[in-house]
Amino acid sequence: MNILVLNSGSSSLKYKLFAAEEEVVLAFGVVERIGMSGGPGKITHQIQDNEKYEVEDDIPNHQKALRMVLELLIDPKWGVLQDLGEINGVGHRVLHGGEYFKASVLITEEDIASMEKLKELGPLHMPANIMGIKACEEIMPGTPQVAVFDTAFHQTMPRKAFLYALPYEMYEQHRVRRYGFHGTSHRYVSGQAAKILGRPLNSLKMITAHLGNGSSLAAIDGGKVVDTSMGLTPLEGMVMGTRSGDLDPAIVPFIGAKLKLTPEEADDYLNKKSGFLGMTGYSDMRDIQRERKAGNSRAQEAYQLFIYRITKYIGAYFVALKGLDVLAFTAGIGENDWLTREDICHELEFLGVKMNYAKNKNLRGQDAILSHPESKVTVMLIPTNEELVIVRDTLDLIGK
Amino acid sequence: MNILVLNSGSSSLKYKLFAAEEEVVLAFGVVERIGMSGGPGKITHQIQDNEKYEVEDDIPNHQKALRMVLELLIDPKWGVLQDLGEINGVGHRVLHGGEYFKASVLITEEDIASMEKLKELGPLHMPANIMGIKACEEIMPGTPQVAVFDTAFHQTMPRKAFLYALPYEMYEQHRVRRYGFHGTSHRYVSGQAAKILGRPLNSLKMITAHLGNGSSLAAIDGGKVVDTSMGLTPLEGMVMGTRSGDLDPAIVPFIGAKLKLTPEEADDYLNKKSGFLGMTGYSDMRDIQRERKAGNSRAQEAYQLFIYRITKYIGAYFVALKGLDVLAFTAGIGENDWLTREDICHELEFLGVKMNYAKNKNLRGQDAILSHPESKVTVMLIPTNEELVIVRDTLDLIGK
Repeated sequence: MNILVLNSGSSSLKYKLFAAEEEVVLAFGVVERIGMSGGPGKITHQIQDNEKYEVEDDIPNHQKALRMVLELLIDPKWGVLQDLGEINGVGHRVLHGGEYFKASVLITEEDIASMEKLKELGPLHMPANIMGIKACEEIMPGTPQVAVFDTAFHQTMPRKAFLYALPYEMYEQHRVRRYGFHGTSHRYVSGQAAKILGRPLNSLKMITAHLGNGSSLAAIDGGKVVDTSMGLTPLEGMVMGTRSGDLDPAIVPFIGAKLKLTPEEADDYLNKKSGFLGMTGYSDMRDIQRERKAGNSRAQEAYQLFIYRITKYIGAYFVALKGLDVLAFTAGIGENDWLTREDICHELEFLGVKMNYAKNKNLRGQDAILSHPESKVTVMLIPTNEELVIVRDTLDLIGK
Repeated sequence: MNILVLNSGSSSLKYKLFAAEEEVVLAFGVVERIGMSGGPGKITHQIQDNEKYEVEDDIPNHQKALRMVLELLIDPKWGVLQDLGEINGVGHRVLHGGEYFKASVLITEEDIASMEKLKELGPLHMPANIMGIKACEEIMPGTPQVAVFDTAFHQTMPRKAFLYALPYEMYEQHRVRRYGFHGTSHRYVSGQAAKILGRPLNSLKMITAHLGNGSSLAAIDGGKVVDTSMGLTPLEGMVMGTRSGDLDPAIVPFIGAKLKLTPEEADDYLNKKSGFLGMTGYSDMRDIQRERKAGNSRAQEAYQLFIYRITKYIGAYFVALKGLDVLAFTAGIGENDWLTREDICHELEFLGVKMNYAKNKNLRGQDAILSHPESKVTVMLIPTNEELVIVRDTLDLIGK
C-alpha cells in the first residue's frame, strides 16, 4: 500500500510518498510560493537519495500544486508510480482539531464542515489544511483521505489542566481553552520511548520535551496527556525562536498601548518578534550557542531563560504526574543540541537524575537512553517522526 | 516611639498608629471615598478594641484626609496622643519600587522623583501612594518618613527568573520585567517561619504561599527570593478572586479582537472580570466553598483549577530551589481556609509531605506547624503582618 502524506501551509505543500507497510519513503518534496505574487512558484522533488529535481512555474493555488506533485509521482523519469491508482490513501497533517477530533479520522463531508468551524482557532493553517483536503477530493476522488490533528493527542487533558480562569462564556461560546500542539510528535515519542524500554506505555509517567523552533512539553501518564505547555495557540509555554512563551498577560495591553498596536499587531509582536529573536537578534539555537561561546551576554541570558523555563515546567509536571519515569527529548534542539539536554538534566540531579554526560555529548538524531541505569528518571533521546504516525494512522483507518 | 503606618489607595487612606518598640496598635482606621463625587467621604476610627467613631464629611483629597486622621489622633475623646510631635515617624506602604528600591528607604526628594517615574508601572496605586507621602511632608514637616515597597523583597531574583522573552528594548526602555508583589508579606512570613522553627533563615529552602483575594507564591532560598509568581503587574500567576492569572498571551489579542476591546478594557477584563468571578459569578473563596458543598460544578471546577495551578507552581519552585524545607501558608485564604491547605498538601504527599490533617482542620489565623515531625517538608501556617514589617523598618531607619 502506498500512502501520500501531505502538509499544506498557507503558501506551501510538503509531501512524502510512503510504501506504508514497509514504512519506507519512496519520494518527497515541497511546493513553495503557492499563490504568491512577485515571482513564480517552485517545486523541489526527490526520489530517496537521488538528485533533486527543481522547477519553477506559475502555481496559483493548492489544486495546481497538488496536480504538479501527482504528475511528478508518475513521471517516467522522476516518478515512482505507474499511475495514480497506486496511491491507496492520503494522510493530511491538520493543525487544529478543536474539541471535535480526539483522534485521526477517515475524512467525511461532516468532518470538513467541523474543520471549517476551526478556522478561527488556526487562522494561518486551517484554511490551507482544508484547501489541501479539497484539492485531493477533486483530483483523486475515491481515494480515501485521513486527517491527523496536531491537537488530538492532548484531548485527554482533564478540565483543571485545560480551562483558563476567564469568564465562562469564553470557553462555552468561543472555545477558548488549552488545546496544545505537537500532539503527533508527543504521541510518537512517548510510544517509541516505551517500545525501546520494553515497558508498557500505560505503566509510565513521562515528560516529552519537543524542543525546536517551536517548543512544547507534555506530561503523559500511562500514555494519556494530562497537561501540555502550549495553549489556545502555539504561543504559550517555552521561550521559542520568535515566540515569547509565558508572559504576565497584562504585558499584552501594556505593550499594545505603548506601541499603539492593533490586536493583530500585538499577536504578531509576540509570535514573530519575541523569543530568542527579540532577546538576541537570532532565532536559531545554533546561532545562540555560537554567540554564547563568543561571549555574547544577551545570548547567554536568553539561553539561561530557555533552560530555566523548561526545568520549571518539568517541576510542575513532576507534581502533576506525582512522579516521573521517563524524560524524552525530541525535535530540532532536543535531538541535536546536546548542551541543552545536559544543562536541563544537570538542574534535575537533585531529583535523582543521573545522566551519562559523555554519551549524551556524542549523540544526535538517534533513539537512545542517555541516563545511567541507576538514574531515578530514564532520560531518552527519541528523534520525532510525525509522518510515520500519519502513515500508520492512514493505513489503519483505510483498512477498516 | 510612635509610628504611624499609612496605606494610601486611590480613594482611601488606611492608618494604624503603633507603639513601635512594643509592637502594639494604639489606634487605627480608614478614610474612604476621598475625592469622590456623589456623596461625602467617611472616616472610621477606633482605639484598640473600643467602640468605633464614624463621621462623614467633605474629603476632597488625601491632604484633607490626613489632617482629619491627625486631628482624631490628638482628640481628647477619640485620640491617644497629646500632640502630633509624639509621632516619631511615618511608614508608608508603597506598591512599586521598580528597580530603584531594593529595600525600604528614609524618603528623600530624590526618592519621590524615582517614585514619580514608576507611576506607569502602577497607574492605580502609585499616584495615591505619592499623594500620601506629600501630604505628610506638608502637614508634618520634619517628621521622618519611610517607604516600604511591595516589590523590594523580590529584587534578589536572578535575571533568568525576572526577564521575559520579549524584544530587549521592552526591558531596557520600558522596564518590562517580573517584579513580583506582596513582597512585604513574603518577607514577614519567611522570617517568622524561620524564627518559629528556631533555624537560621539562610539555611532554609522555602515556598511562601500568600493566598488571598490576590495570590502569589515566592521561592525563597536562604532568605532571598529566587522567583515569584506575580510579574510586571499583580495579574500573573495564580487563579485569583477576579484575576485570570496565567494565560496563553495570545488569548489577550484574541479576546480583544472578539469583544472589540481597547488595551485598557482588555486589562480590565483580565483583572476585574476573570478569575473566580468570571468562572463562577463569585469572587470570594467562602462563596466558592459554600457553592461547592451545594453541588455547584462551576465552583468545583474553579477550585480545582486554583489548587492545581498552585501545586504546579510548587513543583516548579521545588526544581528552582532544588529541594524544599518549608511550605508556609498566609493571607485570607491561606490563613482561614483549611481545605485549601489540605487539598494542596494532599497533592504533595508523593514528595514526602506528611500533613497533620486533623490539626490543620482546626487551625486558623495563628502561627503553627501543620505537618508531622517526620514530614520531608515542614508545612506551616503564618498569619501575615505587613504593618509590623513597616513599623520595624521605619523604626530601624529613623534610628540611624
